[in-house]
Amino acid sequence: MSLPIILKGDGNKEPFAIEKLTESLRRSGTDDHLAETVAKRVGATVKDGMTTTAIYQEAFKALRKEERVSAARYSMRRAILDLGPTGFPFEKFVAALMHAKGYETSYGITVQGRCIDHEVDVVMRKDGKAIGAELKFHNTPGFKTDLKTALYVRARYWDIQWGAEDRKEKAGIDEGWLVTNTKFTSKAIQYSNCSGIKLLGWSYPDGASLSDFIRETGVYPITILTTLSQAEKNRLLQSGVTMCHMVMSDPDSLKRIGISAKKQSLVVEESKAICQL
Amino acid sequence: MSLPIILKGDGNKEPFAIEKLTESLRRSGTDDHLAETVAKRVGATVKDGMTTTAIYQEAFKALRKEERVSAARYSMRRAILDLGPTGFPFEKFVAALMHAKGYETSYGITVQGRCIDHEVDVVMRKDGKAIGAELKFHNTPGFKTDLKTALYVRARYWDIQWGAEDRKEKAGIDEGWLVTNTKFTSKAIQYSNCSGIKLLGWSYPDGASLSDFIRETGVYPITILTTLSQAEKNRLLQSGVTMCHMVMSDPDSLKRIGISAKKQSLVVEESKAICQL
Repeated sequence: MSLPIILKGDGNKEPFAIEKLTESLRRSGTDDHLAETVAKRVGATVKDGMTTTAIYQEAFKALRKEERVSAARYSMRRAILDLGPTGFPFEKFVAALMHAKGYETSYGITVQGRCIDHEVDVVMRKDGKAIGAELKFHNTPGFKTDLKTALYVRARYWDIQWGAEDRKEKAGIDEGWLVTNTKFTSKAIQYSNCSGIKLLGWSYPDGASLSDFIRETGVYPITILTTLSQAEKNRLLQSGVTMCHMVMSDPDSLKRIGISAKKQSLVVEESKAICQL
Repeated sequence: MSLPIILKGDGNKEPFAIEKLTESLRRSGTDDHLAETVAKRVGATVKDGMTTTAIYQEAFKALRKEERVSAARYSMRRAILDLGPTGFPFEKFVAALMHAKGYETSYGITVQGRCIDHEVDVVMRKDGKAIGAELKFHNTPGFKTDLKTALYVRARYWDIQWGAEDRKEKAGIDEGWLVTNTKFTSKAIQYSNCSGIKLLGWSYPDGASLSDFIRETGVYPITILTTLSQAEKNRLLQSGVTMCHMVMSDPDSLKRIGISAKKQSLVVEESKAICQL
Protein backbone atom coordinates (compact mmCIF):
# COMPACT_ATOMS: atom_id res chain seq x y z
CA MET A 1 0.00 0.00 0.00
CA SER A 2 1.46 3.34 -1.03
CA LEU A 3 1.12 6.40 1.18
CA PRO A 4 -1.17 9.24 0.06
CA ILE A 5 0.66 12.26 -1.36
CA ILE A 6 -0.27 15.45 0.44
CA LEU A 7 0.22 19.15 -0.25
CA LYS A 8 2.46 21.13 2.05
CA GLY A 9 1.92 24.80 2.94
CA ASP A 10 4.74 25.86 0.55
CA GLY A 11 2.99 24.12 -2.32
CA ASN A 12 5.36 21.14 -2.39
CA LYS A 13 4.10 17.55 -2.31
CA GLU A 14 5.25 14.77 0.02
CA PRO A 15 4.02 11.34 1.18
CA PHE A 16 1.88 11.50 4.33
CA ALA A 17 3.98 10.59 7.45
CA ILE A 18 1.92 9.52 10.44
CA GLU A 19 4.94 9.94 12.79
CA LYS A 20 5.01 13.67 12.04
CA LEU A 21 1.33 14.02 12.89
CA THR A 22 1.75 12.02 16.13
CA GLU A 23 4.72 14.16 17.13
CA SER A 24 2.78 17.33 16.51
CA LEU A 25 -0.12 16.14 18.68
CA ARG A 26 2.32 15.07 21.37
CA ARG A 27 3.92 18.52 21.41
CA SER A 28 0.52 19.96 22.37
CA GLY A 29 0.84 18.17 25.74
CA THR A 30 -1.22 15.07 24.96
CA ASP A 31 -0.04 11.77 26.41
CA ASP A 32 1.63 9.34 23.98
CA HIS A 33 -1.21 6.85 23.85
CA LEU A 34 -3.92 9.37 23.04
CA ALA A 35 -1.68 11.14 20.47
CA GLU A 36 -1.06 7.85 18.68
CA THR A 37 -4.71 6.80 18.80
CA VAL A 38 -5.93 10.08 17.33
CA ALA A 39 -3.14 10.24 14.70
CA LYS A 40 -3.96 6.69 13.58
CA ARG A 41 -7.68 7.41 13.35
CA VAL A 42 -7.27 10.67 11.41
CA GLY A 43 -4.37 9.27 9.36
CA ALA A 44 -6.64 6.54 8.02
CA THR A 45 -8.88 9.18 6.39
CA VAL A 46 -6.04 11.01 4.60
CA LYS A 47 -6.31 10.97 0.82
CA ASP A 48 -4.09 12.08 -2.07
CA GLY A 49 -4.06 15.83 -2.52
CA MET A 50 -5.19 16.80 1.02
CA THR A 51 -3.35 19.77 2.48
CA THR A 52 -1.30 19.38 5.68
CA THR A 53 -3.30 22.24 7.20
CA ALA A 54 -6.60 20.41 6.68
CA ILE A 55 -5.17 17.17 8.10
CA TYR A 56 -3.75 18.88 11.17
CA GLN A 57 -6.98 20.77 11.77
CA GLU A 58 -8.94 17.52 11.64
CA ALA A 59 -6.50 15.88 14.02
CA PHE A 60 -6.65 18.67 16.58
CA LYS A 61 -10.43 18.75 16.41
CA ALA A 62 -10.51 15.00 17.10
CA LEU A 63 -8.02 15.41 19.91
CA ARG A 64 -9.99 18.14 21.65
CA LYS A 65 -13.10 15.99 21.44
CA GLU A 66 -11.27 13.00 22.92
CA GLU A 67 -9.82 15.11 25.69
CA ARG A 68 -13.20 16.60 26.57
CA VAL A 69 -14.72 13.14 26.73
CA SER A 70 -11.89 11.80 28.84
CA ALA A 71 -12.03 14.85 31.16
CA ALA A 72 -15.78 14.41 31.53
CA ARG A 73 -15.31 10.72 32.16
CA TYR A 74 -12.70 11.45 34.76
CA SER A 75 -14.82 13.98 36.63
CA MET A 76 -17.84 11.66 36.41
CA ARG A 77 -15.83 8.92 38.01
CA ARG A 78 -14.55 11.33 40.65
CA ALA A 79 -18.13 12.50 41.29
CA ILE A 80 -19.22 8.92 42.00
CA LEU A 81 -16.25 8.36 44.31
CA ASP A 82 -17.23 11.59 46.06
CA LEU A 83 -20.61 10.08 46.93
CA GLY A 84 -18.77 8.20 49.68
CA PRO A 85 -18.30 10.97 52.23
CA THR A 86 -21.51 12.86 51.42
CA GLY A 87 -24.12 10.66 53.07
CA PHE A 88 -25.80 10.25 49.69
CA PRO A 89 -25.42 6.54 49.21
CA PHE A 90 -24.50 4.76 45.99
CA GLU A 91 -27.77 2.78 46.36
CA LYS A 92 -29.87 5.90 45.85
CA PHE A 93 -27.78 7.00 42.91
CA VAL A 94 -28.04 3.62 41.17
CA ALA A 95 -31.78 3.54 41.88
CA ALA A 96 -32.17 7.00 40.29
CA LEU A 97 -30.06 5.97 37.31
CA MET A 98 -32.01 2.75 36.70
CA HIS A 99 -35.26 4.63 37.18
CA ALA A 100 -34.18 6.90 34.32
CA LYS A 101 -33.53 3.70 32.31
CA GLY A 102 -37.22 2.82 32.74
CA TYR A 103 -37.07 0.53 35.79
CA GLU A 104 -39.29 0.76 38.85
CA THR A 105 -36.84 0.79 41.71
CA SER A 106 -36.86 0.32 45.45
CA TYR A 107 -34.00 -0.13 47.88
CA GLY A 108 -33.12 -1.68 51.22
CA ILE A 109 -35.61 -4.55 50.79
CA THR A 110 -35.45 -7.72 52.92
CA VAL A 111 -36.23 -10.90 50.98
CA GLN A 112 -36.73 -14.35 52.48
CA GLY A 113 -34.41 -16.96 51.03
CA ARG A 114 -34.39 -20.72 51.52
CA CYS A 115 -31.91 -20.57 54.41
CA ILE A 116 -31.87 -16.99 55.56
CA ASP A 117 -33.28 -13.50 55.04
CA HIS A 118 -31.33 -11.29 52.66
CA GLU A 119 -31.00 -7.54 52.36
CA VAL A 120 -31.30 -6.70 48.68
CA ASP A 121 -29.70 -3.32 48.03
CA VAL A 122 -31.79 -2.32 45.02
CA VAL A 123 -34.76 -4.11 43.42
CA MET A 124 -35.45 -3.11 39.79
CA ARG A 125 -38.60 -4.07 37.88
CA LYS A 126 -39.35 -3.75 34.18
CA ASP A 127 -41.48 -5.75 31.72
CA GLY A 128 -42.64 -8.12 34.48
CA LYS A 129 -39.09 -9.06 35.44
CA ALA A 130 -37.55 -8.36 38.86
CA ILE A 131 -33.83 -7.84 39.24
CA GLY A 132 -32.08 -7.82 42.59
CA ALA A 133 -28.85 -5.85 42.70
CA GLU A 134 -26.05 -6.19 45.22
CA LEU A 135 -24.06 -2.96 45.33
CA LYS A 136 -20.37 -2.58 46.02
CA PHE A 137 -19.14 0.93 46.42
CA HIS A 138 -15.40 1.57 46.81
CA ASN A 139 -13.58 4.80 47.45
CA THR A 140 -10.29 3.53 46.02
CA PRO A 141 -10.08 4.09 42.25
CA GLY A 142 -7.75 1.13 41.59
CA PHE A 143 -9.90 -1.42 43.45
CA LYS A 144 -11.20 -4.41 41.48
CA THR A 145 -14.30 -6.33 42.54
CA ASP A 146 -13.15 -9.94 42.75
CA LEU A 147 -14.21 -13.55 42.39
CA LYS A 148 -15.17 -13.92 46.07
CA THR A 149 -17.66 -11.10 45.69
CA ALA A 150 -19.13 -12.68 42.56
CA LEU A 151 -19.36 -16.04 44.38
CA TYR A 152 -21.18 -14.63 47.40
CA VAL A 153 -23.61 -12.64 45.25
CA ARG A 154 -24.30 -15.80 43.22
CA ALA A 155 -24.96 -17.81 46.42
CA ARG A 156 -27.23 -15.06 47.75
CA TYR A 157 -29.42 -15.10 44.62
CA TRP A 158 -29.61 -18.88 44.57
CA ASP A 159 -30.83 -18.81 48.16
CA ILE A 160 -33.40 -16.14 47.24
CA GLN A 161 -34.53 -17.96 44.08
CA TRP A 162 -34.75 -21.37 45.77
CA GLY A 163 -36.60 -19.86 48.73
CA ALA A 164 -39.25 -18.53 46.33
CA GLU A 165 -39.44 -21.92 44.59
CA ASP A 166 -39.85 -23.73 47.95
CA ARG A 167 -42.76 -21.48 48.79
CA LYS A 168 -44.13 -21.70 45.23
CA GLU A 169 -44.12 -17.92 44.98
CA LYS A 170 -44.72 -16.41 41.57
CA ALA A 171 -43.29 -12.93 42.16
CA GLY A 172 -39.73 -13.47 43.31
CA ILE A 173 -36.43 -12.08 42.12
CA ASP A 174 -35.70 -13.37 38.62
CA GLU A 175 -32.16 -12.15 38.17
CA GLY A 176 -29.18 -11.23 40.34
CA TRP A 177 -26.87 -8.35 39.47
CA LEU A 178 -23.64 -7.16 41.00
CA VAL A 179 -23.29 -3.40 40.54
CA THR A 180 -20.13 -1.50 41.39
CA ASN A 181 -18.26 1.72 40.62
CA THR A 182 -15.04 -0.30 40.20
CA LYS A 183 -13.57 -2.69 37.65
CA PHE A 184 -13.89 -6.49 37.91
CA THR A 185 -11.14 -9.09 37.95
CA SER A 186 -11.17 -11.40 34.92
CA LYS A 187 -12.05 -14.36 37.19
CA ALA A 188 -15.08 -12.49 38.53
CA ILE A 189 -16.22 -11.86 34.95
CA GLN A 190 -15.61 -15.47 33.88
CA TYR A 191 -17.49 -16.93 36.86
CA SER A 192 -20.42 -14.49 36.65
CA ASN A 193 -21.00 -15.03 32.93
CA CYS A 194 -20.89 -18.80 33.41
CA SER A 195 -23.00 -19.03 36.56
CA GLY A 196 -25.65 -16.53 35.55
CA ILE A 197 -25.27 -13.30 37.43
CA LYS A 198 -24.97 -10.03 35.60
CA LEU A 199 -22.14 -7.60 36.27
CA LEU A 200 -22.52 -3.85 35.91
CA GLY A 201 -19.34 -1.90 36.60
CA TRP A 202 -17.94 1.52 35.93
CA SER A 203 -16.90 0.59 32.38
CA TYR A 204 -18.23 -2.95 32.09
CA PRO A 205 -19.86 -4.34 30.02
CA ASP A 206 -18.66 -2.33 27.05
CA GLY A 207 -21.43 -0.08 25.76
CA ALA A 208 -23.81 -0.85 28.65
CA SER A 209 -21.73 0.13 31.65
CA LEU A 210 -22.52 2.44 34.53
CA SER A 211 -20.73 5.34 32.82
CA ASP A 212 -22.58 4.59 29.57
CA PHE A 213 -25.88 4.66 31.47
CA ILE A 214 -24.95 7.97 33.08
CA ARG A 215 -24.12 9.56 29.71
CA GLU A 216 -27.23 8.08 28.12
CA THR A 217 -29.66 9.26 30.80
CA GLY A 218 -27.98 12.49 31.91
CA VAL A 219 -28.44 11.37 35.53
CA TYR A 220 -25.42 12.99 37.20
CA PRO A 221 -25.03 13.37 40.95
CA ILE A 222 -24.51 16.96 42.08
CA THR A 223 -21.06 15.91 43.39
CA ILE A 224 -19.90 16.46 39.79
CA LEU A 225 -20.48 20.23 39.99
CA THR A 226 -17.37 22.38 40.40
CA THR A 227 -19.25 25.58 41.14
CA LEU A 228 -20.43 24.32 44.56
CA SER A 229 -18.23 23.79 47.63
CA GLN A 230 -18.27 20.44 49.44
CA ALA A 231 -20.25 22.03 52.30
CA GLU A 232 -22.83 23.41 49.85
CA LYS A 233 -23.09 20.02 48.13
CA ASN A 234 -23.70 18.36 51.50
CA ARG A 235 -26.43 20.86 52.37
CA LEU A 236 -28.04 20.35 48.97
CA LEU A 237 -27.90 16.53 49.30
CA GLN A 238 -29.43 16.74 52.78
CA SER A 239 -32.28 18.82 51.36
CA GLY A 240 -32.98 15.94 48.95
CA VAL A 241 -31.51 17.53 45.82
CA THR A 242 -29.12 14.84 44.64
CA MET A 243 -28.97 15.08 40.84
CA CYS A 244 -27.98 17.80 38.40
CA HIS A 245 -31.33 17.68 36.63
CA MET A 246 -33.07 18.43 39.94
CA VAL A 247 -31.04 21.64 40.17
CA MET A 248 -32.12 22.54 36.64
CA SER A 249 -35.81 21.88 37.19
CA ASP A 250 -35.86 23.54 40.64
CA PRO A 251 -33.25 26.33 40.78
CA ASP A 252 -34.90 27.63 43.98
CA SER A 253 -33.41 24.63 45.78
CA LEU A 254 -30.10 26.56 45.65
CA LYS A 255 -31.69 29.66 47.15
CA ARG A 256 -33.17 27.59 49.97
CA ILE A 257 -29.72 26.45 51.09
CA GLY A 258 -28.49 30.06 51.09
CA ILE A 259 -26.67 30.39 47.76
CA SER A 260 -26.50 33.91 46.29
CA ALA A 261 -28.48 34.78 43.17
CA LYS A 262 -25.29 35.30 41.16
CA LYS A 263 -23.84 31.93 42.12
CA GLN A 264 -27.21 30.24 41.54
CA SER A 265 -27.12 31.01 37.85
CA LEU A 266 -23.54 29.76 37.56
CA VAL A 267 -24.55 26.45 39.16
CA VAL A 268 -27.57 26.10 36.90
CA GLU A 269 -25.40 26.87 33.87
CA GLU A 270 -22.90 24.21 34.87
CA SER A 271 -25.67 21.67 35.50
CA LYS A 272 -27.07 22.32 32.04
CA ALA A 273 -23.65 22.00 30.42
CA ILE A 274 -23.03 18.66 32.15
CA CYS A 275 -26.43 17.11 31.55
CA GLN A 276 -26.03 17.90 27.85
CA LEU A 277 -22.63 16.20 27.56
CA MET B 1 -35.55 -26.74 99.76
CA SER B 2 -33.71 -26.06 103.02
CA LEU B 3 -30.05 -25.10 103.05
CA PRO B 4 -27.47 -27.62 104.30
CA ILE B 5 -26.19 -26.90 107.83
CA ILE B 6 -22.39 -26.66 107.89
CA LEU B 7 -19.79 -26.65 110.67
CA LYS B 8 -17.77 -23.48 111.19
CA GLY B 9 -14.12 -23.47 112.34
CA ASP B 10 -15.19 -22.46 115.88
CA GLY B 11 -17.44 -25.55 116.16
CA ASN B 12 -20.70 -23.61 115.64
CA LYS B 13 -23.26 -24.61 113.01
CA GLU B 14 -24.88 -22.34 110.42
CA PRO B 15 -26.81 -22.70 107.14
CA PHE B 16 -24.56 -22.68 104.05
CA ALA B 17 -24.54 -19.22 102.39
CA ILE B 18 -23.41 -19.24 98.76
CA GLU B 19 -22.91 -15.45 98.78
CA LYS B 20 -20.17 -15.79 101.40
CA LEU B 21 -18.35 -18.37 99.28
CA THR B 22 -18.64 -16.20 96.15
CA GLU B 23 -17.36 -13.16 98.04
CA SER B 24 -14.38 -15.12 99.32
CA LEU B 25 -13.47 -16.31 95.79
CA ARG B 26 -13.89 -12.77 94.49
CA ARG B 27 -11.51 -11.43 97.18
CA SER B 28 -8.81 -13.72 95.74
CA GLY B 29 -8.82 -11.58 92.58
CA THR B 30 -11.10 -13.72 90.43
CA ASP B 31 -13.55 -11.92 88.17
CA ASP B 32 -17.20 -11.89 89.25
CA HIS B 33 -18.45 -14.28 86.62
CA LEU B 34 -15.90 -17.00 87.32
CA ALA B 35 -16.30 -16.60 91.12
CA GLU B 36 -20.06 -17.07 90.78
CA THR B 37 -19.73 -20.03 88.42
CA VAL B 38 -17.31 -21.87 90.68
CA ALA B 39 -19.26 -21.05 93.89
CA LYS B 40 -22.48 -22.33 92.30
CA ARG B 41 -20.84 -25.55 91.11
CA VAL B 42 -19.12 -26.31 94.43
CA GLY B 43 -22.11 -25.04 96.43
CA ALA B 44 -24.33 -27.64 94.75
CA THR B 45 -22.19 -30.42 96.30
CA VAL B 46 -22.36 -29.09 99.89
CA LYS B 47 -24.06 -31.48 102.35
CA ASP B 48 -25.16 -31.24 106.01
CA GLY B 49 -22.25 -31.50 108.42
CA MET B 50 -19.47 -30.42 105.97
CA THR B 51 -16.89 -28.08 107.46
CA THR B 52 -16.40 -24.60 106.01
CA THR B 53 -12.68 -25.42 105.60
CA ALA B 54 -13.43 -28.43 103.38
CA ILE B 55 -15.92 -26.43 101.29
CA TYR B 56 -13.52 -23.52 100.77
CA GLN B 57 -10.65 -25.87 99.93
CA GLU B 58 -12.81 -27.56 97.27
CA ALA B 59 -13.85 -24.20 95.88
CA PHE B 60 -10.30 -22.88 95.60
CA LYS B 61 -9.12 -26.12 94.01
CA ALA B 62 -11.91 -25.81 91.40
CA LEU B 63 -11.06 -22.16 90.86
CA ARG B 64 -7.35 -22.83 90.27
CA LYS B 65 -8.25 -25.53 87.74
CA GLU B 66 -10.64 -23.19 85.90
CA GLU B 67 -8.04 -20.44 85.84
CA ARG B 68 -5.35 -22.75 84.50
CA VAL B 69 -7.64 -23.93 81.73
CA SER B 70 -8.63 -20.40 80.83
CA ALA B 71 -4.98 -19.26 80.89
CA ALA B 72 -4.01 -22.17 78.64
CA ARG B 73 -6.94 -21.39 76.34
CA TYR B 74 -5.89 -17.80 76.20
CA SER B 75 -2.27 -18.55 75.35
CA MET B 76 -3.38 -21.17 72.78
CA ARG B 77 -5.50 -18.57 71.09
CA ARG B 78 -2.65 -16.08 71.23
CA ALA B 79 -0.27 -18.69 69.78
CA ILE B 80 -2.55 -19.14 66.76
CA LEU B 81 -2.83 -15.38 66.27
CA ASP B 82 0.97 -15.27 66.45
CA LEU B 83 1.18 -17.55 63.42
CA GLY B 84 0.36 -14.45 61.37
CA PRO B 85 3.74 -12.72 61.41
CA THR B 86 5.89 -15.87 61.53
CA GLY B 87 5.68 -17.07 57.95
CA PHE B 88 4.24 -20.36 59.20
CA PRO B 89 0.85 -20.23 57.60
CA PHE B 90 -2.44 -21.21 59.20
CA GLU B 91 -2.90 -23.66 56.28
CA LYS B 92 0.04 -25.75 57.40
CA PHE B 93 -1.07 -25.69 61.02
CA VAL B 94 -4.60 -26.81 60.16
CA ALA B 95 -3.18 -29.53 57.87
CA ALA B 96 -0.97 -30.81 60.74
CA LEU B 97 -3.89 -30.71 63.15
CA MET B 98 -6.23 -32.61 60.84
CA HIS B 99 -3.47 -35.07 60.04
CA ALA B 100 -3.28 -35.82 63.77
CA LYS B 101 -7.07 -36.35 63.64
CA GLY B 102 -6.46 -39.13 61.11
CA TYR B 103 -6.93 -37.27 57.81
CA GLU B 104 -4.60 -37.39 54.83
CA THR B 105 -3.99 -33.76 54.05
CA SER B 106 -2.61 -31.66 51.24
CA TYR B 107 -2.72 -27.92 50.67
CA GLY B 108 -2.70 -25.29 47.95
CA ILE B 109 -4.51 -27.52 45.45
CA THR B 110 -6.15 -26.17 42.29
CA VAL B 111 -9.47 -27.85 41.46
CA GLN B 112 -11.47 -27.39 38.27
CA GLY B 113 -15.03 -26.24 38.87
CA ARG B 114 -17.91 -25.91 36.43
CA CYS B 115 -17.20 -22.26 35.70
CA ILE B 116 -13.72 -21.61 36.95
CA ASP B 117 -10.62 -23.10 38.61
CA HIS B 118 -10.51 -22.86 42.39
CA GLU B 119 -7.64 -22.79 44.87
CA VAL B 120 -8.59 -25.14 47.69
CA ASP B 121 -6.59 -24.22 50.80
CA VAL B 122 -6.54 -27.67 52.42
CA VAL B 123 -7.89 -30.99 51.11
CA MET B 124 -8.55 -33.62 53.81
CA ARG B 125 -9.28 -37.28 53.07
CA LYS B 126 -10.56 -39.96 55.43
CA ASP B 127 -12.73 -43.08 54.98
CA GLY B 128 -13.01 -42.46 51.24
CA LYS B 129 -14.42 -38.98 51.71
CA ALA B 130 -12.68 -35.81 50.52
CA ILE B 131 -13.22 -32.52 52.29
CA GLY B 132 -12.14 -29.19 50.86
CA ALA B 133 -11.45 -26.49 53.41
CA GLU B 134 -11.41 -22.75 52.82
CA LEU B 135 -9.29 -21.11 55.50
CA LYS B 136 -9.80 -17.65 56.97
CA PHE B 137 -7.06 -16.47 59.26
CA HIS B 138 -7.50 -13.19 61.12
CA ASN B 139 -5.09 -11.37 63.35
CA THR B 140 -7.80 -9.41 65.14
CA PRO B 141 -9.19 -11.36 68.13
CA GLY B 142 -12.66 -9.75 68.03
CA PHE B 143 -13.22 -10.45 64.29
CA LYS B 144 -16.24 -12.58 63.33
CA THR B 145 -16.39 -14.54 60.08
CA ASP B 146 -19.64 -13.41 58.46
CA LEU B 147 -22.48 -14.46 56.17
CA LYS B 148 -20.77 -13.17 53.02
CA THR B 149 -17.84 -15.49 53.66
CA ALA B 150 -20.17 -18.45 54.22
CA LEU B 151 -22.02 -17.56 50.99
CA TYR B 152 -18.87 -17.39 48.87
CA VAL B 153 -17.49 -20.64 50.30
CA ARG B 154 -20.84 -22.31 49.58
CA ALA B 155 -20.82 -21.04 45.97
CA ARG B 156 -17.22 -22.18 45.55
CA TYR B 157 -18.05 -25.76 46.60
CA TRP B 158 -21.14 -25.88 44.43
CA ASP B 159 -19.01 -24.88 41.46
CA ILE B 160 -16.46 -27.56 42.38
CA GLN B 161 -19.10 -30.25 42.96
CA TRP B 162 -21.07 -29.44 39.80
CA GLY B 163 -17.85 -29.34 37.78
CA ALA B 164 -17.07 -32.91 38.89
CA GLU B 165 -20.65 -33.98 38.09
CA ASP B 166 -20.43 -32.41 34.61
CA ARG B 167 -17.27 -34.37 33.93
CA LYS B 168 -18.73 -37.49 35.56
CA GLU B 169 -15.73 -37.68 37.89
CA LYS B 170 -15.95 -40.09 40.79
CA ALA B 171 -13.21 -38.64 42.98
CA GLY B 172 -14.17 -35.03 43.58
CA ILE B 173 -14.55 -32.98 46.72
CA ASP B 174 -17.50 -34.32 48.73
CA GLU B 175 -17.79 -31.68 51.39
CA GLY B 176 -16.92 -28.01 51.82
CA TRP B 177 -15.66 -26.62 55.13
CA LEU B 178 -14.94 -23.10 56.28
CA VAL B 179 -12.16 -23.13 58.86
CA THR B 180 -11.15 -20.06 60.85
CA ASN B 181 -9.44 -18.99 64.06
CA THR B 182 -12.28 -16.54 64.72
CA LYS B 183 -15.91 -16.72 65.79
CA PHE B 184 -18.83 -16.79 63.33
CA THR B 185 -21.80 -14.46 63.13
CA SER B 186 -25.13 -16.15 63.88
CA LYS B 187 -26.24 -15.56 60.27
CA ALA B 188 -23.12 -17.35 58.98
CA ILE B 189 -23.96 -20.32 61.23
CA GLN B 190 -27.63 -20.37 60.22
CA TYR B 191 -26.86 -20.22 56.49
CA SER B 192 -24.05 -22.80 56.62
CA ASN B 193 -26.09 -25.35 58.57
CA CYS B 194 -29.01 -24.95 56.20
CA SER B 195 -27.06 -24.93 52.92
CA GLY B 196 -24.64 -27.72 53.76
CA ILE B 197 -21.19 -26.38 54.48
CA LYS B 198 -19.45 -27.19 57.71
CA LEU B 199 -18.00 -24.52 59.95
CA LEU B 200 -14.95 -25.07 62.11
CA GLY B 201 -14.00 -22.10 64.25
CA TRP B 202 -11.91 -21.35 67.27
CA SER B 203 -14.66 -22.46 69.66
CA TYR B 204 -17.33 -23.67 67.22
CA PRO B 205 -18.94 -26.17 67.12
CA ASP B 206 -19.09 -26.86 70.82
CA GLY B 207 -17.00 -29.94 71.66
CA ALA B 208 -15.51 -30.27 68.15
CA SER B 209 -13.93 -26.88 67.64
CA LEU B 210 -10.41 -25.96 66.61
CA SER B 211 -9.37 -25.47 70.24
CA ASP B 212 -10.97 -28.83 71.16
CA PHE B 213 -8.99 -30.50 68.35
CA ILE B 214 -5.78 -28.88 69.58
CA ARG B 215 -6.34 -30.08 73.16
CA GLU B 216 -7.37 -33.53 71.93
CA THR B 217 -4.38 -34.07 69.63
CA GLY B 218 -1.71 -32.13 71.50
CA VAL B 219 -0.79 -30.45 68.20
CA TYR B 220 0.38 -27.03 69.39
CA PRO B 221 2.36 -24.60 67.25
CA ILE B 222 5.69 -23.61 68.78
CA THR B 223 4.42 -20.01 68.89
CA ILE B 224 2.80 -21.08 72.20
CA LEU B 225 6.17 -21.49 73.94
CA THR B 226 7.17 -18.72 76.33
CA THR B 227 10.77 -19.94 76.79
CA LEU B 228 11.71 -18.97 73.22
CA SER B 229 12.06 -15.43 71.86
CA GLN B 230 10.19 -14.39 68.71
CA ALA B 231 13.48 -14.47 66.74
CA GLU B 232 14.22 -18.01 67.99
CA LYS B 233 10.68 -19.12 67.09
CA ASN B 234 11.13 -17.72 63.59
CA ARG B 235 14.44 -19.55 63.16
CA LEU B 236 12.87 -22.77 64.38
CA LEU B 237 9.85 -22.39 62.07
CA GLN B 238 12.15 -21.73 59.12
CA SER B 239 14.05 -24.94 59.92
CA GLY B 240 10.73 -26.82 59.60
CA VAL B 241 10.08 -27.37 63.31
CA THR B 242 6.60 -25.98 63.67
CA MET B 243 4.93 -27.97 66.47
CA CYS B 244 5.69 -28.55 70.14
CA HIS B 245 5.75 -32.33 69.72
CA MET B 246 8.49 -31.94 67.11
CA VAL B 247 10.63 -30.17 69.70
CA MET B 248 10.02 -33.07 72.12
CA SER B 249 10.87 -35.80 69.63
CA ASP B 250 13.89 -33.95 68.21
CA PRO B 251 15.45 -31.77 70.93
CA ASP B 252 18.55 -31.36 68.73
CA SER B 253 16.51 -29.08 66.51
CA LEU B 254 17.00 -26.46 69.25
CA LYS B 255 20.75 -27.00 69.26
CA ARG B 256 20.83 -26.63 65.47
CA ILE B 257 19.40 -23.10 65.67
CA GLY B 258 21.98 -22.15 68.30
CA ILE B 259 20.10 -22.48 71.58
CA SER B 260 22.25 -23.20 74.68
CA ALA B 261 22.10 -26.60 76.38
CA LYS B 262 20.58 -25.10 79.52
CA LYS B 263 17.84 -23.30 77.63
CA GLN B 264 17.18 -26.39 75.46
CA SER B 265 16.03 -28.40 78.46
CA LEU B 266 13.76 -25.54 79.60
CA VAL B 267 12.13 -25.43 76.16
CA VAL B 268 11.67 -29.21 76.08
CA GLU B 269 10.19 -29.12 79.60
CA GLU B 270 7.72 -26.42 78.57
CA SER B 271 6.80 -28.32 75.41
CA LYS B 272 6.06 -31.43 77.48
CA ALA B 273 3.98 -29.48 79.99
CA ILE B 274 1.90 -27.95 77.20
CA CYS B 275 1.37 -31.09 75.15
CA GLN B 276 0.08 -32.80 78.27
CA LEU B 277 -2.42 -30.07 79.06
